[in-house]
Amino acid sequence: MTARFQSVAIIGTGLLGASLGLAMKQRGLAQVVHGVGRRQSSLDIALERSAIDRGHLDPKDAILDADLIVICTPAGFVPEMLDCVRDHASPNAIVTDVTSTKRTICDHAASTWQKPRRFIGSHPMAGSESFGPEHAASNLYEGRYVLVESAPNLDDVACATVHDLWESIGAITVDVDPAEHDHLLARTSHVPHIAAAAVAMLTRNQRGIRPFAGGGLRDITRVAAGRPELWRDICLTNAESVSSTLDDLIATLQEFKDAVAEEDANGLDQLFEAGRQARLDAFDENNGDST
Amino acid sequence: MTARFQSVAIIGTGLLGASLGLAMKQRGLAQVVHGVGRRQSSLDIALERSAIDRGHLDPKDAILDADLIVICTPAGFVPEMLDCVRDHASPNAIVTDVTSTKRTICDHAASTWQKPRRFIGSHPMAGSESFGPEHAASNLYEGRYVLVESAPNLDDVACATVHDLWESIGAITVDVDPAEHDHLLARTSHVPHIAAAAVAMLTRNQRGIRPFAGGGLRDITRVAAGRPELWRDICLTNAESVSSTLDDLIATLQEFKDAVAEEDANGLDQLFEAGRQARLDAFDENNGDST
Repeated sequence: MTARFQSVAIIGTGLLGASLGLAMKQRGLAQVVHGVGRRQSSLDIALERSAIDRGHLDPKDAILDADLIVICTPAGFVPEMLDCVRDHASPNAIVTDVTSTKRTICDHAASTWQKPRRFIGSHPMAGSESFGPEHAASNLYEGRYVLVESAPNLDDVACATVHDLWESIGAITVDVDPAEHDHLLARTSHVPHIAAAAVAMLTRNQRGIRPFAGGGLRDITRVAAGRPELWRDICLTNAESVSSTLDDLIATLQEFKDAVAEEDANGLDQLFEAGRQARLDAFDENNGDST
Repeated sequence: MTARFQSVAIIGTGLLGASLGLAMKQRGLAQVVHGVGRRQSSLDIALERSAIDRGHLDPKDAILDADLIVICTPAGFVPEMLDCVRDHASPNAIVTDVTSTKRTICDHAASTWQKPRRFIGSHPMAGSESFGPEHAASNLYEGRYVLVESAPNLDDVACATVHDLWESIGAITVDVDPAEHDHLLARTSHVPHIAAAAVAMLTRNQRGIRPFAGGGLRDITRVAAGRPELWRDICLTNAESVSSTLDDLIATLQEFKDAVAEEDANGLDQLFEAGRQARLDAFDENNGDST
């Protein structure tokens, strides 16, 4: 089913929000797209790129008659936006978000919204270390997975519509429990990002480092160029899983350290082989693509 | 100056050795290229690709009348190859290698070869997680840095010739002291590689992980698909620097852990910002490109 809407409000017109607007407008899925930004300059870029039809600094102006509202702000702003939408949007509006952590946000909605709930959390596995509407692309979501909240007391129509929305712009949706989502994402995204930042920091204060910095380091640290405040919010809204997964990572690095210090060739072979196998398993096309 | 040779012996015809043969043959830099492999099947691929002119299982057959010998075996085999070359090659032969660690190998040569030494260590910052002569490319070294040993008691002509060799196939050479090399490479390559393996291992035994594994994880863990024995040898021949750099990495991850556990938003901001700045500095084109 293709999802079509009269009035769409995209709150936050950064890379993800502006790309969503572009994708919907290019496919004729929305009669009008309202964008909400914190700065007029950012809205102006989104307008210039035709990612939105109208720009607003106050979310209330954008959501008043919206039948679809997508919250695309950093994680830290989502709870207050949820409150604002609950209090000011039409009770028939269908609402979702794009945040990289889900439990804090979905718990907040579950405890403050009426049931059956018409806010359904989403997390598109799209984006990059680039940010801002100037990097928006109408094909950003094509072929990407979008993880969609599965929980009790959700409105069936809202659920189906949120799945349709993402599939209409080329994504593949997967149902997931918010707590399970955050547990897995700590392992596949949040702690790997911290590791990339920590690896980048190893090169600090080393003179003339450039000839020594090869393609491997470039790949490993690429995501460390992303926005600090985005990753801060992700860590704070998934603190428990991030913290315990960091313990796991540190323990594994300590195993490597011990094997190096003891010149344990066999142990190092096994550790590197385990890393190689895990990498192949995670990205093997035949490894299944459902939860 | 373009380097030209009568008879070149490439010991080890994997990705780096076969690519070197291809690059030299395509540019007419060698009258004949002898390849040495441990398995005939690997030599056959190198011959088929025209990366070498003749294949040998015994290095002595290849080096007898060589005026250039390049040791392209994994780090663990280099000392015995150095002994073999010293005992069986012409004393006029110029010798180098391509190993990712330099101190162990250069120290071995310094203590066992006559002075002035005609073995000069090299480390091309080229390669990938792919391996074997089937992935060889004549342009593998183009635009890449090659770190070349700088030390007392090196033969001037041998030194100049090794620089010319790499520059003749499109690389940029940089002089470096072997101990300084290993110190820096632990930070820019060896420990980052361990981190990539350890991050990949976080995804083990998680069912249906594929939809949760995005582009960031793919980049961060790419090098973890490389050959375990190669990275084992690198760790064992640079144990001291790898070990102390791993301590640094673990300490930084512990700082992240503490900031997450204490919900220290400001501390997390500063840590991610430090990672971002280090990443930008390491790969900033304007950041200087000499040691």
